[in-house]
Amino acid sequence: MSMTNPTPPSINRASDNGALLKQDMGARARVIEHTIDTLLPLTTGGDARLIEAMRYATLGGGKRLRGYLAIVTASLFGVPESQSARVAASVEMLHAYSLVHDDLPAMDDDDMRRGQPSTHRKFDEATAILAGDALQTKAFEILAASQTHTDANVRIDLISAFAEASGAAGMVGGQMIDMEGEGRALPLEEVRHLHALKTGCLIRYSAESGAILGQASPDLRRRLRSYGANIGAAFQIADDVLDATATAEELGKTAGKDEASGKSTFVALLGIEGAKAEALRVTEEAIADLGPFGAQADRLRDLAYYVIERKN
Amino acid sequence: MSMTNPTPPSINRASDNGALLKQDMGARARVIEHTIDTLLPLTTGGDARLIEAMRYATLGGGKRLRGYLAIVTASLFGVPESQSARVAASVEMLHAYSLVHDDLPAMDDDDMRRGQPSTHRKFDEATAILAGDALQTKAFEILAASQTHTDANVRIDLISAFAEASGAAGMVGGQMIDMEGEGRALPLEEVRHLHALKTGCLIRYSAESGAILGQASPDLRRRLRSYGANIGAAFQIADDVLDATATAEELGKTAGKDEASGKSTFVALLGIEGAKAEALRVTEEAIADLGPFGAQADRLRDLAYYVIERKN
Repeated sequence: MSMTNPTPPSINRASDNGALLKQDMGARARVIEHTIDTLLPLTTGGDARLIEAMRYATLGGGKRLRGYLAIVTASLFGVPESQSARVAASVEMLHAYSLVHDDLPAMDDDDMRRGQPSTHRKFDEATAILAGDALQTKAFEILAASQTHTDANVRIDLISAFAEASGAAGMVGGQMIDMEGEGRALPLEEVRHLHALKTGCLIRYSAESGAILGQASPDLRRRLRSYGANIGAAFQIADDVLDATATAEELGKTAGKDEASGKSTFVALLGIEGAKAEALRVTEEAIADLGPFGAQADRLRDLAYYVIERKN
Repeated sequence: MSMTNPTPPSINRASDNGALLKQDMGARARVIEHTIDTLLPLTTGGDARLIEAMRYATLGGGKRLRGYLAIVTASLFGVPESQSARVAASVEMLHAYSLVHDDLPAMDDDDMRRGQPSTHRKFDEATAILAGDALQTKAFEILAASQTHTDANVRIDLISAFAEASGAAGMVGGQMIDMEGEGRALPLEEVRHLHALKTGCLIRYSAESGAILGQASPDLRRRLRSYGANIGAAFQIADDVLDATATAEELGKTAGKDEASGKSTFVALLGIEGAKAEALRVTEEAIADLGPFGAQADRLRDLAYYVIERKN
């Protein structure tokens, strides 16, 4: 090995980074799955069906992008996985509750989710409503427990940021704007705002949560928050592109739904190539946010590219 | 005034206690209403309709039993009303979310609530689902904020107890058992258990919250928790009696619904007189829990009787 020809910094992606990332995501997904499994034990009492529906909605798959972000950003600050996996489980439960309610007939009316019947199809509507409600409660309960962090101030910080990201001024607010905007052509800035709320806030929180758990400096916390917001935006644009180009089999859910329902998407506004360029632009902003972390944040750089290159 | 003939302890209720209690409940209800109003400010952005629905579901009436309990139990420990009114607003928001979701067509399918159209009738189903979701988030957000208590450990304590009372092992679990039990005759013990979860847990938490805010001794906290559980049970039995005996006009909601839907109620199991006797029995247990508080807890004693004597 020659010292005069060093390996280029991994921000120039080597061809096998994608494979290593997928391997790492898979390993962390299993940790998250196991953590959720432990936090939602099966019961035999009157609430058995409710717990079963909560487990159905949260276990058994998904990329665990949000949970992965929580674990990887926490690892930058040396936070033990026993703590960050709880935050990951909590954010995945919140994400799952939002999908369960979003799939309801009165909302998006989706029969399929990850290639399986959605929760209200597998169980019934009432059970799906209650399972979603209880998953949200559980997500907050997990953050409040002392196992998540010994310092109560850190737990409070997590809970406040989580509530901000997921409530009326965040995810649920975005879902509302999305429902109201259906069948109406929204300008680009409104579409951006809608997605920043609907999917962006929770992904942003996931990246920020590692900095909160790690009691990072305000600057590093702000950078991870911005990184999360940017890959959240990239994720949504890539989702629009996938909806317009992939098959239902590839997606594990109904394809071409956006166009059919007259939703304002990045693809409708910018065309497929324009949307791809926009996704790349925000991905590069996400990469720029990671500057001060150096090579330690390579996994997060790979993840930023993965988000716009994934096939489902 | 003769010292040899002291006034009997006010546990023997004077005839005007009911009027004083109602006056106090009214005054505190206005404080709670004002606090909710401040915590849910109207907006003009894309989330305006969501906030409007959240306000519709939480403002404009109700007895505020849960919020009242939070304020009165906190006052036993000298907690400022600026803190306890936030806990009261939080628990009333959580209660409101549960009613909004409970009224949905897929659940109890109720068109009326407090004499007004239920939230999904006033707005639409999707908005009602989302408003309920965001109200739950907001309830946790309020507890996490430093205005609720300066000590983060106290806020964590509130959040943990709140999550326990309202999630799958509490309120939502009770709603699930209630849905599953419909049209099926449940034995008395199961009806008791169902209501302890469905309505009891949140009323119990409300009474306990004052002890948490006031950093009470474990014994006093346990006593207020038990008091809350007992008046929660009394409240539900009285509700069953009211449903069987009052008119829709008196109730502000559909009357006689329990019998029509084949629900197992205390009235169905014990008869009207038997149910009334049972309500009195648990009310007296609630009074016994208050022993160590002496005359300071007279308002809570009056409240225990009010719960079983109310007309709506």
